[in-house]
Amino acid sequence: MKMLINVAESVVADALRGMAAAHPELLIDVDRRLVVRRHAPVAGKVGLVSGGGSGHEPLHGGFVGRGMLDAACPGEVFTSPVPDQMVRAAAAVDSGAGVLFIVKNYTGDVLNFDMAAELAEDEGVQVAKVVVNDDVAVLDSLYTAGRRGTGATLFVEKLAGALAEEGAPLERVEALARRVNESSRSFGVALSACTTPAKGSPTFDLPAGELELGVGIHGEPGRERRGMMTSGEIADVVVEAVVEDLRPDAPVIALVNGMGGTPLLELYGFNAEVHRALAERKVAVARTLVGNYVTSLDMAGCSVTLCQVDEELLRLWDAPVSTPALRWGC
Amino acid sequence: MKMLINVAESVVADALRGMAAAHPELLIDVDRRLVVRRHAPVAGKVGLVSGGGSGHEPLHGGFVGRGMLDAACPGEVFTSPVPDQMVRAAAAVDSGAGVLFIVKNYTGDVLNFDMAAELAEDEGVQVAKVVVNDDVAVLDSLYTAGRRGTGATLFVEKLAGALAEEGAPLERVEALARRVNESSRSFGVALSACTTPAKGSPTFDLPAGELELGVGIHGEPGRERRGMMTSGEIADVVVEAVVEDLRPDAPVIALVNGMGGTPLLELYGFNAEVHRALAERKVAVARTLVGNYVTSLDMAGCSVTLCQVDEELLRLWDAPVSTPALRWGC
Repeated sequence: MKMLINVAESVVADALRGMAAAHPELLIDVDRRLVVRRHAPVAGKVGLVSGGGSGHEPLHGGFVGRGMLDAACPGEVFTSPVPDQMVRAAAAVDSGAGVLFIVKNYTGDVLNFDMAAELAEDEGVQVAKVVVNDDVAVLDSLYTAGRRGTGATLFVEKLAGALAEEGAPLERVEALARRVNESSRSFGVALSACTTPAKGSPTFDLPAGELELGVGIHGEPGRERRGMMTSGEIADVVVEAVVEDLRPDAPVIALVNGMGGTPLLELYGFNAEVHRALAERKVAVARTLVGNYVTSLDMAGCSVTLCQVDEELLRLWDAPVSTPALRWGC
Repeated sequence: MKMLINVAESVVADALRGMAAAHPELLIDVDRRLVVRRHAPVAGKVGLVSGGGSGHEPLHGGFVGRGMLDAACPGEVFTSPVPDQMVRAAAAVDSGAGVLFIVKNYTGDVLNFDMAAELAEDEGVQVAKVVVNDDVAVLDSLYTAGRRGTGATLFVEKLAGALAEEGAPLERVEALARRVNESSRSFGVALSACTTPAKGSPTFDLPAGELELGVGIHGEPGRERRGMMTSGEIADVVVEAVVEDLRPDAPVIALVNGMGGTPLLELYGFNAEVHRALAERKVAVARTLVGNYVTSLDMAGCSVTLCQVDEELLRLWDAPVSTPALRWGC
């Protein structure tokens, strides 16, 4: 498998160096693996910190900036960051108003963020935590007890980030983050496996002519393998799985997400089928985001995340955001 | 080759339907294959129209909006749009101030835009035209007499779009577009071939362990095949090829572009090496854009485009832009 890298050992550090070169508006500490919003901490503002294994770019570093995250902690590829990174991030962004940790539900991430929360509290930082667990495909997956955390992370980071930007106190930001997670569901499909730099070969076998329904963002097994399906058939399976679990009775924001290796031309075509499938199920779509946001390296495939919204959540979605990967209104 | 599509025949129409669903701020005519900025024509403003074969998304439809294009004409995959699309686009965006056609240098595109310019002029629309030919890799390629047009298209569309937004007359917008093209050079590298929906198999053979230096955005042959190289070695070849031809004596804007199938993690790492290679050649970088902007379906690989800038071009780069794929300042 050919990759645009130097050596596997340095891919995360190399990417952080390149991100720093492209984004002078961020403070990037390559050695300590931290991406921090410039001018942090923002006086009086709750600090938002997330992180997780690398390989899902632009998540999380690409979501650092005004109206979203204050800091991100990238781990090695598909590997949780360590508590030390999270403690440093918390210290860097705490203005005295406290810090919210946004954690995808993988065992290593949850343990490390828990440990970091204790350490940060010992240092006088008030820490709250929300665990994102939106993936309806399976329970108790390869790295997860319960449901996996995937695309809803973007919604939690964006909506809680907008509320924090307005100056809301920690308990309100935390409650909103929890509400966003509870209002969101995801389901993913792999058309190919992904290849980690360290392994150099696909992380799982997906035979020619088959796809994996319900795949995880590290290639964890989903619900089932099937013979290749059309975009419309895939949209029906994905939308049905999400809607059946979410049972929305209000409009949703739809994230039609690429896993990394699927062309945007195909993603837009898939979005048409997702909208068709949602309309058939009487689900109204208030906003749609199409693109590669929560990826799995070079995996071909897609996922759909729906977040049911009310007026407040829609207002927070439309609020200004200025990060490398998500930017509008400012 | 598995694809997220219904049938090959409908991929462009499907993508336009999906784009319309995601972007209510654009007027998308699926049948006539047109993407038009809402509220076009803008009174007193020169209209910018581009287009080309599909498969390079977000180019060009993703660049329609305030501060960039007024309309885009998507052709079939890797196939020029037809003059009828361009004539309709010109009519839709002409406020009386005239229209600039921005054309990538491929024989079919140039012929069709030429014919469309004549037809539009017959209908009373004043049309100017700039042909983008920035790819230094080869002369007289598979679909091109002279140099191919690639990444500089983004610079021409952004910078001329910003000038048009300020209300500059057609001859100034045209002259600036020409200057941007002349100030820009590109070079691309393929780590894998791409697969068109119609063919369903890779458009060319690239053996395991080899890369193609100087590849075109349709997989056209480049300068040479070599055994696999590190990201740093690739950056040296690419930067040397561009700098040798451009010979910049002022700062540049760098587009570090993914071909579609290369993870953002790798692109950022490559950007670090591009910056290192530019620093070694005493080239100052004023701005950097990293991501998938001028793609070749699922091709793995990258390209670098440099645009030498002065104060005016840098100001136009920083000016507000609001399109699906490029958005800042508004």
